[in-house]
Amino acid sequence: MINITLPDGAIRQYEAGVTALDIAKSISEGLARKVLAANVNGQVWDATRPINSDATLKLLTWTDTEGKSTFWHSSAHLMAEAVETLFPGVKFWVGPPVENGFYYDMDLGDRKMTEEDLAALEKKMNELAKKNNNYTRREVPKPEAIQYFTQKGDEYKLDLLSNLADGEITFYTQGGFTDLCRGPHIPNTGFIKAIKLTSIAGAYWKGDEKNKMLTRVYGITFPAQKELDEYLQMLEEAKKRDHRKLGRELGIYTMDDDVGPGLIMWLPNGTIIIEELEKLAKETEQEAGYHRVVTPHIAKESMYLTSGHLPYYADSMYPPMELEGEKYYLRAMNCPHHHKIFAAEPKSYRDLPYRIAEYGTVYRYEQSGELFGLMRVRCLHMNDAHIYCTKEQFESEFRAVNDMYLKYFKIFGIDKYVMRLSLHSPDKLGKKYVNEPELWKATETMVREVLINSNIPFVEVQDEAAFYGPKIDVQIWSVIGREFTLATNQVDFSQGRSFKLHYTTQDNQSDTPLIIHRAPLGTHERFIGFLLEHYAGKLPLWLCPVQVKVLPISDKFLDYAKTVSDKLKKADIRVGVDDRNEKIGKKIRDTELLKVPYMLVVGEKEMNENKVAVRKQGTGENVVEGVDEFIEKIKEEVKSRGQSR
Amino acid sequence: MINITLPDGAIRQYEAGVTALDIAKSISEGLARKVLAANVNGQVWDATRPINSDATLKLLTWTDTEGKSTFWHSSAHLMAEAVETLFPGVKFWVGPPVENGFYYDMDLGDRKMTEEDLAALEKKMNELAKKNNNYTRREVPKPEAIQYFTQKGDEYKLDLLSNLADGEITFYTQGGFTDLCRGPHIPNTGFIKAIKLTSIAGAYWKGDEKNKMLTRVYGITFPAQKELDEYLQMLEEAKKRDHRKLGRELGIYTMDDDVGPGLIMWLPNGTIIIEELEKLAKETEQEAGYHRVVTPHIAKESMYLTSGHLPYYADSMYPPMELEGEKYYLRAMNCPHHHKIFAAEPKSYRDLPYRIAEYGTVYRYEQSGELFGLMRVRCLHMNDAHIYCTKEQFESEFRAVNDMYLKYFKIFGIDKYVMRLSLHSPDKLGKKYVNEPELWKATETMVREVLINSNIPFVEVQDEAAFYGPKIDVQIWSVIGREFTLATNQVDFSQGRSFKLHYTTQDNQSDTPLIIHRAPLGTHERFIGFLLEHYAGKLPLWLCPVQVKVLPISDKFLDYAKTVSDKLKKADIRVGVDDRNEKIGKKIRDTELLKVPYMLVVGEKEMNENKVAVRKQGTGENVVEGVDEFIEKIKEEVKSRGQSR
Repeated sequence: MINITLPDGAIRQYEAGVTALDIAKSISEGLARKVLAANVNGQVWDATRPINSDATLKLLTWTDTEGKSTFWHSSAHLMAEAVETLFPGVKFWVGPPVENGFYYDMDLGDRKMTEEDLAALEKKMNELAKKNNNYTRREVPKPEAIQYFTQKGDEYKLDLLSNLADGEITFYTQGGFTDLCRGPHIPNTGFIKAIKLTSIAGAYWKGDEKNKMLTRVYGITFPAQKELDEYLQMLEEAKKRDHRKLGRELGIYTMDDDVGPGLIMWLPNGTIIIEELEKLAKETEQEAGYHRVVTPHIAKESMYLTSGHLPYYADSMYPPMELEGEKYYLRAMNCPHHHKIFAAEPKSYRDLPYRIAEYGTVYRYEQSGELFGLMRVRCLHMNDAHIYCTKEQFESEFRAVNDMYLKYFKIFGIDKYVMRLSLHSPDKLGKKYVNEPELWKATETMVREVLINSNIPFVEVQDEAAFYGPKIDVQIWSVIGREFTLATNQVDFSQGRSFKLHYTTQDNQSDTPLIIHRAPLGTHERFIGFLLEHYAGKLPLWLCPVQVKVLPISDKFLDYAKTVSDKLKKADIRVGVDDRNEKIGKKIRDTELLKVPYMLVVGEKEMNENKVAVRKQGTGENVVEGVDEFIEKIKEEVKSRGQSR
Repeated sequence: MINITLPDGAIRQYEAGVTALDIAKSISEGLARKVLAANVNGQVWDATRPINSDATLKLLTWTDTEGKSTFWHSSAHLMAEAVETLFPGVKFWVGPPVENGFYYDMDLGDRKMTEEDLAALEKKMNELAKKNNNYTRREVPKPEAIQYFTQKGDEYKLDLLSNLADGEITFYTQGGFTDLCRGPHIPNTGFIKAIKLTSIAGAYWKGDEKNKMLTRVYGITFPAQKELDEYLQMLEEAKKRDHRKLGRELGIYTMDDDVGPGLIMWLPNGTIIIEELEKLAKETEQEAGYHRVVTPHIAKESMYLTSGHLPYYADSMYPPMELEGEKYYLRAMNCPHHHKIFAAEPKSYRDLPYRIAEYGTVYRYEQSGELFGLMRVRCLHMNDAHIYCTKEQFESEFRAVNDMYLKYFKIFGIDKYVMRLSLHSPDKLGKKYVNEPELWKATETMVREVLINSNIPFVEVQDEAAFYGPKIDVQIWSVIGREFTLATNQVDFSQGRSFKLHYTTQDNQSDTPLIIHRAPLGTHERFIGFLLEHYAGKLPLWLCPVQVKVLPISDKFLDYAKTVSDKLKKADIRVGVDDRNEKIGKKIRDTELLKVPYMLVVGEKEMNENKVAVRKQGTGENVVEGVDEFIEKIKEEVKSRGQSR
């Protein structure tokens, strides 16, 4: 008998050779029907793979990231089986799961895959899925594996094999299809209930443009048709909410070939959103005791050698400018400049925590192919700040930063979020991570405790920390369920020493501060991209570039419209007048399209009574109100930074 | 007889061969005693040089820039005469007038000039000046000139001679000293009544570090002792008001070797000043109908080739970064980015004037040796904007910009200013200036008329326009009389076409807008440097980083001090508490040094009565007031942006 430890700490005894699926069945049949794979002693396994000794076990279902990716990886195999049926002689390269679904790269010889083929493939996949074929794992000696793919004539799999040692090679078979694969896979094809092949693309073999172009087919699958329908609907909705489309329609930003790819120019409307966000950040940070600073966007190479960003981070930076024998870099991060600000004047324990904030502009080199609207850019305006504190102050400072996140989430109606605690990997100390095993342990514990104590949902991931300490990335979901990684909160026990930062302690000693790097609102670029999607362009009133538009029914009422507009301007409301010689119907339609929250229609009656007919965007309803009354209401709405649209 | 036309248009007749000095005497003896030189037909001449044909004449005195520089140039000759007396065998290179005084570069052989020598030289100069020796001009044939300096053994003057043609060589002699010199000079040494030699420096011959190091002696002279005394007092005062000293003492800014020379890092106190200035600019510009934009700090080479800044301006820019086969430049000006914003969305006459503003950061390469505190830097935050308008709108737009300058001057207590209208030079069309003779003429006339119509004091200077049109630079004087060139207002009839900018006219044609470039507050760097000197660090309340400091008489009143401070904070007043365990006397002294405008001393009596003892910085007087009463008063003072300190 072996001992199986479950996530809740319970230990159950089973015969050696038991599978995760057996264990699930022993708990409940319902559970067993949902098990896709299992985490056994920290590794993801087939649910059908025998367990021969004591182990910790976590059953993985669709709600687990690893469960999902196993599901999609098995779907890639299913697609390959279908492709082999319809395109005999096809050769396969690799077929991994991705963020949403999976793909497989294949060599179709002289044949071409078309959109119509996708439909045929989907049909075939559904047919094969219904057969409930098991995914079976087999360890294969290297010579046998080579023989198999030589016979099949698949030089791509032979290339993969050439990099594998004998003893670590496994084959997976379902139905008539066998693949060289590390696994794991779901128990059988019957789990796959809904299939959508989404696109065909070209992809160079091994990503090298000197190699042959392979065909890449993307797809996504679900354990139920309902989930696929919801996904497709979300995609449709996302297309309408595409920040690139809205950004153009609402005059938010532009790009230009002469300026360069990934370099956003913010148009007047976009700049209003930026300024409102900065105002919110400044207010929030001032209340939280931050000072503001302004620093240049360049620095000498020596600064980034001290910080440790060079040479490792060089690939993500713009190349240097050489001047007077010195190399200057466009900065990719603000921290070194802020450390210099800390060091500029002597500090004592009385000055700590010392919190300095800047909407710092940084430049990062992203491959041209990676650039994407506001989401992946090369010039970023970051809501950055650095907190220099003592060890004793760390917990309350770190917690205050997390609380600031929650405050912002509330303002922007972000209901779904998770904090992702990224830890170091002990085997990469001195390489990817500062070689301070004790400090890593201590700070990781501190951060974990803060999260637990503040009841914030979080997950832990190994080997994704910053080089100077553990970090928390914040993942949020827009109302249509798309995921965004926005903000970051990092602990740094390393740069303080590299920059020789110190403060005088209460007993007149010298000590190095701990540093918290934080950016709750992330970058303007990504955050505004998120907001456009999240609100489908219907921004809350306080963020709207134009809050009110006055629409005179005819030119006769233009003067009155201007009087109303002037009154609103005086009350600091962003207002425009539609002074075109157009019918009121057209004026309303055009203003609706620009998503202006309030239209004030004015005609004879309104003018005579010093009133306005208030029409809220998207409602089609008119309510006649006094001008002052309307101003008071709208001022209140702006001030509250409410969501009500 | 010849006709002499005076500046007021009057024409007087004199015998040919008359001198400006004779003419001055014919007007009044008092005037003659003040004449230093004369402008004859547009050229500056000796007042003693005979005029042989009809001419326009302007007598030049100490109040004229050219009068002053003639005076200082003659003083350089006087100094050379004294040096030759005390250092026989000295060889001279050049001795020009400068902004404040003059210098002469000399080769002293093995000897060294010391501070003590300066005193002896001053004494000798005074002695020589009293001799009333005339400066006499003589045209000298080149062979004779070469013979003279060969005999004297002065290879430096021989080098100068080698670049001069026969017929254009003149010698000037006063007393026992003769120099190769183009002139002009003052009538005689007796005009020089007050002399101060200010410093000794090294200077490479012809500015080339491979050449010999010469000795440079700086000096300044005046026509009266009183003026020298005032000048020295101003220097003394300027030293106290030195923005570098105040910048350090008040925690305004810092620089760092790892960041780079000329790259300012703004500390929290400096950032507060920046934000207050930006707030003022934004309010002012919003009221004037400007939109705000945000653009990146880099662009591709192609953009600056289009704008015409490259290749001509390359020496003033940072070197390019090469990425993906493209050259990217750190921008040295914001205009091209703004033109791209204009072009991003189609424009019609309804959108004009289109005014876009940005506190744009630009980078300019200044030689290391030229860098100076906040006055000459490499990273500049510029209060920049561009106005795109029709020809018909130009006058009112340009006038509105000038009015904005005047508004700012009032706010900052700038009483003395002059606008400097820089015009093109017709012989440099197609080289230094866009080759559009008609447009130059038309826009220069437009600009001149606006200035005349608005009654603004201005001077015209030739050959200092921007390459795309005429410009106005604004010179202002600080309260201690130092001159600053701050702001600029430029017309541009060229870049609109280079960037193919157009708008649809009312009759549905396409036209190119005129562009006004303007920056009334100049750069943060220079403007804050100016303000620190102008106010000697005692900034007006609204600009003060710390507006109020609460000083508890002892720890017993610390809680009350914090209550008062919290109340002030809630009213958006920047306040601190001196919570050190120090005597109240020391607290007051330290706060005085930091130039905090208001100290609130609190003790038993104040606490019991909910009051504060208000002590205005620099006055030494205490007035006991209620806390709310004080808050109301100070809020009003901040809001008014008043000068009252």
